[in-house]
Amino acid sequence: MSILVVGSVALDSVRTPFGSAEEVLGGSATYFATAASFFADVRVVAVVGEDFSEEHLAFLKSRSIDLEGLRRVPGRTFRWAGEYGYDLNDARTLETQLNVFADFLPEIPQAYTESELVFLANIDPDLQRQVLRQVYSPRLVAADTMNFWIDRKPDALRQMLRSVDVLLINDAETRQLAKEPNLARAARKILGWGPTSLVIKRGEHGALMVRENDWFAAPALPLDSVFDPTGAGDCFAGGFIGYLANTMNFQETNIRKAIVMGSVMASFNVEAFSLDRLRRLTYPEIEARYKAFRRLAHFDDL
Amino acid sequence: MSILVVGSVALDSVRTPFGSAEEVLGGSATYFATAASFFADVRVVAVVGEDFSEEHLAFLKSRSIDLEGLRRVPGRTFRWAGEYGYDLNDARTLETQLNVFADFLPEIPQAYTESELVFLANIDPDLQRQVLRQVYSPRLVAADTMNFWIDRKPDALRQMLRSVDVLLINDAETRQLAKEPNLARAARKILGWGPTSLVIKRGEHGALMVRENDWFAAPALPLDSVFDPTGAGDCFAGGFIGYLANTMNFQETNIRKAIVMGSVMASFNVEAFSLDRLRRLTYPEIEARYKAFRRLAHFDDL
Repeated sequence: MSILVVGSVALDSVRTPFGSAEEVLGGSATYFATAASFFADVRVVAVVGEDFSEEHLAFLKSRSIDLEGLRRVPGRTFRWAGEYGYDLNDARTLETQLNVFADFLPEIPQAYTESELVFLANIDPDLQRQVLRQVYSPRLVAADTMNFWIDRKPDALRQMLRSVDVLLINDAETRQLAKEPNLARAARKILGWGPTSLVIKRGEHGALMVRENDWFAAPALPLDSVFDPTGAGDCFAGGFIGYLANTMNFQETNIRKAIVMGSVMASFNVEAFSLDRLRRLTYPEIEARYKAFRRLAHFDDL
Repeated sequence: MSILVVGSVALDSVRTPFGSAEEVLGGSATYFATAASFFADVRVVAVVGEDFSEEHLAFLKSRSIDLEGLRRVPGRTFRWAGEYGYDLNDARTLETQLNVFADFLPEIPQAYTESELVFLANIDPDLQRQVLRQVYSPRLVAADTMNFWIDRKPDALRQMLRSVDVLLINDAETRQLAKEPNLARAARKILGWGPTSLVIKRGEHGALMVRENDWFAAPALPLDSVFDPTGAGDCFAGGFIGYLANTMNFQETNIRKAIVMGSVMASFNVEAFSLDRLRRLTYPEIEARYKAFRRLAHFDDL
């Protein structure tokens, strides 16, 4: 089944205590699409500038990602520069150059309008709603957002949530969006606004899925070398939605497996800068790491 | 089998966003012993002042906790006052009155010297070592410590670790003790110093057990009402060591179950001030919550 993703394609400059990378391939749609491409067909709606290299396009095509919706317009590609300290949980943004992304108006190609699954990466909630108006009854809509939009566009965000099945945000954003310090109560409040599932990303602490009568806590794998956390959340979403697209089974037991698959993809991505780990990732490695998550989390009945 | 615990018995004054409690029963040995008493016989070595009430003694006795090693000396009982903000992860200490605890020198009664399991709660590592010199080849020794001792008595702490099977600390302390920002590497470094298991307490993110060839991540239950986190770490240790004493099985699969039992006891304790939730806790409730942890963490093979 096909997944439509709408988000950013960027050139990132990243500094971590372990090294740095300049103008490497990044962006939410890029990370999501690459991770999801291990499981399903992915279609990208995004924008790049004239300076976006053929090499990056060739890589995305090598992953069988459909780029009909990737528009190339006059100007420079979106750039983000950030750094991480030893704790690697919080990015400090050094510079954001929106460039061609500033005027991004997602146009969904005709061939994409019947995509079965839609992932709205972290963009203006008004644009996210605009995307949903252009697609024809998808089976599953998932969305990401961030504190910036929760602060600035709470009403548009709430409206967008009415059409969303799965919202993926982090724990601070969950509390902020619900205006409720208790995470369990905050999560339930958000479920009342539309989504049937809330997936709370907790970085090195894993992920928590909240549904009306079902909570699931997936751990994160303790890694020896976390090189660069950039894109981990979007790779998580890519593994999660990708696995759901691959299986087209939205029952709780399968959603749990999809959450773990998201964790698997995020755990690989942080092992190298940019998409470098995913470039050389194989499906047997994915299966082996899924098993490692099972070993990590499993315990017997009393 | 019998567990010996050496630690503090205190009167706590606690403020949280949800209420406050004045001079209520607290202390690491108290929390540990009460939690462990649901599973095994517990012997306490600690000190209180003349002001320690008969009511508190009667409660501990009602839990069948052996108090031969609880000395009552002239002076006032150890007092701690603290407060928590909405996030409830970090306590802010408002006041510490060591009182009779300042001169605490643990003396192990003859009847306690053959205890099969020993828990060294968070006290001066020199005192922890002194305890170990007075006990006769226990089957399992577990210890807690904190940043204060890591800063001030690193050498005594390292020496103490040589005789310890299980060290229970939080993630910041793990990094601090090992002087290594990566948690996985920090944990392995500490295992090289003596303990066969490191149990990293992560508060609302659960617990992580690290052994040479075995990692286990236990989630924390997302609770609607976290009232007061005081004593959660010691209740965790009490459930963990209590379950091991009850089963006397130190194999990995059983250690995992013990970790979850620790999480179960901690999850109850935070639901009320002081030991109030544990006072009315029943074993069927414990079993039901263990099952809830299984439901929370379980997922299928691919």
